[in-house]
Amino acid sequence: MPMNSLDALFEDTLRDMYYAEKKLTKILPKMAKKATSEELTEAFTSHAEETQGQVQRIEQVFDMLDKTPRAKKCEALEGLSAEGDHVMEEAEDDGVMDAGLIASAQAVEHYEIARYGALIAWAKQLDMSDAADLLAESLEEEKAADEKLNGLAETVNPMAARQEAA
Amino acid sequence: MPMNSLDALFEDTLRDMYYAEKKLTKILPKMAKKATSEELTEAFTSHAEETQGQVQRIEQVFDMLDKTPRAKKCEALEGLSAEGDHVMEEAEDDGVMDAGLIASAQAVEHYEIARYGALIAWAKQLDMSDAADLLAESLEEEKAADEKLNGLAETVNPMAARQEAA
Repeated sequence: MPMNSLDALFEDTLRDMYYAEKKLTKILPKMAKKATSEELTEAFTSHAEETQGQVQRIEQVFDMLDKTPRAKKCEALEGLSAEGDHVMEEAEDDGVMDAGLIASAQAVEHYEIARYGALIAWAKQLDMSDAADLLAESLEEEKAADEKLNGLAETVNPMAARQEAA
Repeated sequence: MPMNSLDALFEDTLRDMYYAEKKLTKILPKMAKKATSEELTEAFTSHAEETQGQVQRIEQVFDMLDKTPRAKKCEALEGLSAEGDHVMEEAEDDGVMDAGLIASAQAVEHYEIARYGALIAWAKQLDMSDAADLLAESLEEEKAADEKLNGLAETVNPMAARQEAA
């Protein structure tokens, strides 16, 4: 699709995020299984549920555009997901696994924060304030998830470092 | 390299960022050429120069570890870069090009913010406060670059939307 309008750029990016969020509903439960700390497992599990709601919000925005929801392969999420897989395959210690999983998840959260930020700015510019409000709910959830992971890193990182000294 | 210590996770992520920053020194000048607004071209050009300094800081951190700087393919940046290429190839209007370039660049900034955040937390945990301080300088530059792009989006997005109405 050639992009000759802000509408087209908005729709293209929305399709990218639709792919990303749908894929994350599958990736987050895998990360929850690999996490060794109970709190981290719980954080990934609850964010996986939240992500289901984010998929539905994107479907509602497609609906506002009178378009059928269609995903477009999100190359960035494919790359981020490959980096998460690398941690899940290579980490040989509980603390290192959790520290690596947190960092991978935060890289994904930041990708989403950037993308939702752009989508919201464009929706406002296109006088789609209802869409902007819906997407802003997802943005706030991503920011909260990132903050929660920051907090968990404070207990996980020292455990990963202790393994070092052992 | 199996990751059985926080040291190993730190080094693995440092190599990933070394690849990312080196690649960005080549991508940012391309984005500067494609940008149609003079301010945006200037922003990408000055951030490309800043990125050279960030590459050198990473080399200094490798030096602190007594390691030769070695890059490791950063799958996330490959994906983010593919999304930027998509905008550069498909945008058919000046405002849409600039709006898309800003969003792509902000996605990269956010990736780097997440990665530097993790590296700094791990460096502190590993009692490498000099490395943490160096990486914190790069983190602040990435945050400032993201903020600057937020400001530029405020003039670029309305231009992209006006094209719409034309």
